[in-house]
Amino acid sequence: MSTPTDTTDRTDPAGGDVVATVQRLARAAKAASRKLAGLTTDQKNAALHAAADAILGAAPSVLAANGEDVARARAAGTEESLIDRLALTQARIDGIASGLRQVAGLPDPIGNVLRGSTLPNGLELRQVAVPIGVVGIVYEARPNVTVDAFGLTLKSGNAVLLRGSSSAASSNAALVAVLRDSLATSGIDPDAVALLPSDTRASVTALIRARGLVDVVIPRGGAGLIAAVVAEATVPTIETGVGNCHIYVHSAADSEMALRLILNAKTRRPSVCNTVETVLVDRACAPGLLDSLLSAFQAGGVIVHGDEAGMVPATEADWADEYLSLDIAVKLVDGLDDAVAHIDRYGTGHTEAIVTGDLAAARAFTARVDAAAVMVNASTAFTDGEQFGFGAEIGISTQKLHARGPMGLPELTSTKWIVTGDGHTRPK
Amino acid sequence: MSTPTDTTDRTDPAGGDVVATVQRLARAAKAASRKLAGLTTDQKNAALHAAADAILGAAPSVLAANGEDVARARAAGTEESLIDRLALTQARIDGIASGLRQVAGLPDPIGNVLRGSTLPNGLELRQVAVPIGVVGIVYEARPNVTVDAFGLTLKSGNAVLLRGSSSAASSNAALVAVLRDSLATSGIDPDAVALLPSDTRASVTALIRARGLVDVVIPRGGAGLIAAVVAEATVPTIETGVGNCHIYVHSAADSEMALRLILNAKTRRPSVCNTVETVLVDRACAPGLLDSLLSAFQAGGVIVHGDEAGMVPATEADWADEYLSLDIAVKLVDGLDDAVAHIDRYGTGHTEAIVTGDLAAARAFTARVDAAAVMVNASTAFTDGEQFGFGAEIGISTQKLHARGPMGLPELTSTKWIVTGDGHTRPK
Repeated sequence: MSTPTDTTDRTDPAGGDVVATVQRLARAAKAASRKLAGLTTDQKNAALHAAADAILGAAPSVLAANGEDVARARAAGTEESLIDRLALTQARIDGIASGLRQVAGLPDPIGNVLRGSTLPNGLELRQVAVPIGVVGIVYEARPNVTVDAFGLTLKSGNAVLLRGSSSAASSNAALVAVLRDSLATSGIDPDAVALLPSDTRASVTALIRARGLVDVVIPRGGAGLIAAVVAEATVPTIETGVGNCHIYVHSAADSEMALRLILNAKTRRPSVCNTVETVLVDRACAPGLLDSLLSAFQAGGVIVHGDEAGMVPATEADWADEYLSLDIAVKLVDGLDDAVAHIDRYGTGHTEAIVTGDLAAARAFTARVDAAAVMVNASTAFTDGEQFGFGAEIGISTQKLHARGPMGLPELTSTKWIVTGDGHTRPK
Repeated sequence: MSTPTDTTDRTDPAGGDVVATVQRLARAAKAASRKLAGLTTDQKNAALHAAADAILGAAPSVLAANGEDVARARAAGTEESLIDRLALTQARIDGIASGLRQVAGLPDPIGNVLRGSTLPNGLELRQVAVPIGVVGIVYEARPNVTVDAFGLTLKSGNAVLLRGSSSAASSNAALVAVLRDSLATSGIDPDAVALLPSDTRASVTALIRARGLVDVVIPRGGAGLIAAVVAEATVPTIETGVGNCHIYVHSAADSEMALRLILNAKTRRPSVCNTVETVLVDRACAPGLLDSLLSAFQAGGVIVHGDEAGMVPATEADWADEYLSLDIAVKLVDGLDDAVAHIDRYGTGHTEAIVTGDLAAARAFTARVDAAAVMVNASTAFTDGEQFGFGAEIGISTQKLHARGPMGLPELTSTKWIVTGDGHTRPK
C-alpha cells in the first residue's frame, strides 16, 4: 500500500507547508467522513436548510469578500465575461441558498439496497449504497460551485476537499467559513468541508496524491487541468467536462430540424462542454443544406471552419479541439460509416448526435458511437444533470468507469456487501 | 488529452520494442472492441462454446507447452506449491473448457436498460449497459486465468490484453493461440484477445500508460504489484485482491460459532485474499475463549502472533500485512468501538466480520466498518464471485469506484445514455 508520504510534491520544494496543510485537512476530512456515513437523511436535510439560512444571513460579508476578488480581477485586467462568472450579487446568493434547499429535497441515495439475494446455503446478501468517503474537487472561477459541491457531497454522506480558483479565493474562504460554522451548529463535524490553499499548484498535487486519505478527485475544468490531474494522480479520478461534440446530419434528415438543432447546440451557450463543435454533413444532403447552414451561421455570428468554399480553412486542431466559442467546424462525410469513423477519431466521448428520419440509421449510430450520451434528433445541449432530471450535477463524466455522463447524487456513492449468516462456514 | 506517446517507458531504454509491440496490440484490440460491442448474445455464446471445443482439441499441444513451463520452473528451484499452481493436467484443461461453457450460460449484461424515463418535454432517455472497451489484466502464475479472463471479457463485449507471468509464458502463448484461431473461425476479430510479452516489466508499464487505447487495467496479484501499477498508471485501474481481513468476536458471540468461523476462515485456503489474518477478541469474552482458540489453532497448525501469553510477540507488520499462510494475529479489544478503530487503521477494505448474537452490535458493525464486504456470523471465505452467485469473477475489487467486492460480468460494463427526440432544442 502507498503511504501518505506519496503526497510530497517532489517538483516544488517550496510546497512543503502546503503539502502538510492538505494532508492535515484530508486526515480531518477522513475522520469526519466516518461520522457523516452514519447520519440520517433527516439530519442531513436539516443541515442543508441550516446552511442555506446561514448563507443568506452572511450575505453582506460574502458580498464584501467577493468584492475583493472582483476588484483584484479588474486590477489584473481580467476580461468582463470572466468577471461576470466570478461576481456574486444578492440574487446569486439567493440562488445558491435555494440550490441547497433543492438538494435537501432530492432522494437520499445512501442506504438504498441495490441488489440482494438469499444463497442456497441460507446466507443473506445485500448490496447497499454507501458514501464514497472523501471527495476532492478541483475547479475554476465560479464561487457558486463551492456551495453546490458542498450540498451534493453532504447529502451523499461524503466529506469534501475544495480546491477552487485563486481568483475566487476570498469568496470561497467566506463561503466555506459560513458552511463550517453552520455544520458545527447543526452538530456535524465541520471538517466535512474544507478549502485547500489556492495560491499554489502544490495543493492540487498534494490532493491528488493523498492516497489512503482521499477516495476520489473530480477535476472540473479545461482539458489541460484534467490531463495534468490524471497524469499525476495516485488517487482515483473522474474525468469531466471535455466535450468535442458532433452533430451528424444524415441523408434522411429533415433539413429544417437539422438547422434548428445545430444552431441551438452552438449558440445557446458556446462556452459549455455540451456545445456542438463540429457538424458532419452527409454528402448526400449537402447540396440542399450547406448554403442554408452557412447563412444561418452568418446570421448567428458563428465563424465556420472547414474545407469547403466560404469557410475558414481548417487545420487538424479544428477537428480535434473544443472551440468553446462562436466557432464551428463543418465537414462533408460519405455516409454513416464515415461519420462514425470521424467521431471515433476526434470525439472526446461526451455527446454525439445524429439527425435522421431513418430508424436503421438511428439504431446504427446509437449502437456504434462510443460516448456518454448519444442523441437522436435532439440538441447536444441536453446532456446536463438538471435536464436529465437528476436535480443537480457535480459534473459530466467522460470516462467509462464508475460514472458516465451527468453525475448526480447516486454517482457520489459506492457500495458495500452486507452478508448475514448464522455460523456459516465455507466447505473446502 | 494525453497521447499514446505517454506509454514510453522512460525508466527502461531497452524497452523500446516492447512499448511498440504493446501499442500495436492495444490499437488492434481497440479496433476489435468496436466490433465486439455489436455482437449478439448468440454470437458470443457460440464463440465461447467453440473456444471450449478448440481448447479440448488442442489439449496435447497445450500440455506440451505447459510441460516446458513446469520444467523451467523446476530447473529454477521453484517450490512445489507454486509448481502445482502452474501445472496443467487433462482434468484441469477439462475444467478450463467447462468454465467457458459456464460463462456462455450466464446472462449477457450488454444492452440491459439500467434506467430510463421520458422527460416533461417528451425526450426519451435510456441508460444502457455497454462494454468498457479494452481491458488489460496483469496477473501471476496460473494459466487458467488466461482463459477465464478471455471468457468473461468476450461475454461482456470487451477486448482483452493479457499480461501473464513469465513463468507461464509457454502455456499462455499456446492457450492464446488456440483462442485467437477459434475466434477467427467463429468470424470474430482475433485481436479481441492478445498476450503481451512477459519477459520484461516494460510491457506492464506500456500497458498501464496506453491512455486512449486501453480503458481499464485490472492488476491481479500481491500488494507490491498493485501498488506499482496504481502509482505508474495513467489508464484507470481497479485494485483487487489485497485482503487484510479481520474477524471480531463480540462480547455477545457464541464461542463455539466463533471458533468454527475463525478456523474455517484461516485454514480453508490460507493463501487467498479472503482468508482471515487478524482475530479481534473482545476483552469481555477473552477469558472463556482465548484458551480454546489457542488450542484449536495449535491443533490446526496455525501460528499465533500477538501480545498475550503463549503467542509469538507481534510487531506492527503483524497487524498491517497479510500473512497468506498458516499464521494469524490475535488482539484483545475493548468493545466494538475499539474493534472498528483497529479495522479502520489496518484493514484493506476487503472483508471484515463480526461474530455476535446481539442485533445492535451487528447493525453498528456493518454500518461503521468501511469494506467491500461485511459479514455477520459468517466466514470471510464467502467473499467470492462464485459464492455470491455471480457464476464467475474477474477479481475482487477493494476500491470504492466503479466496482467494490467480487466483480462478475456486470462489473465489466460501462453505460451509455441514448436520448431520442423529434427535433428538441434546449431553451436558454
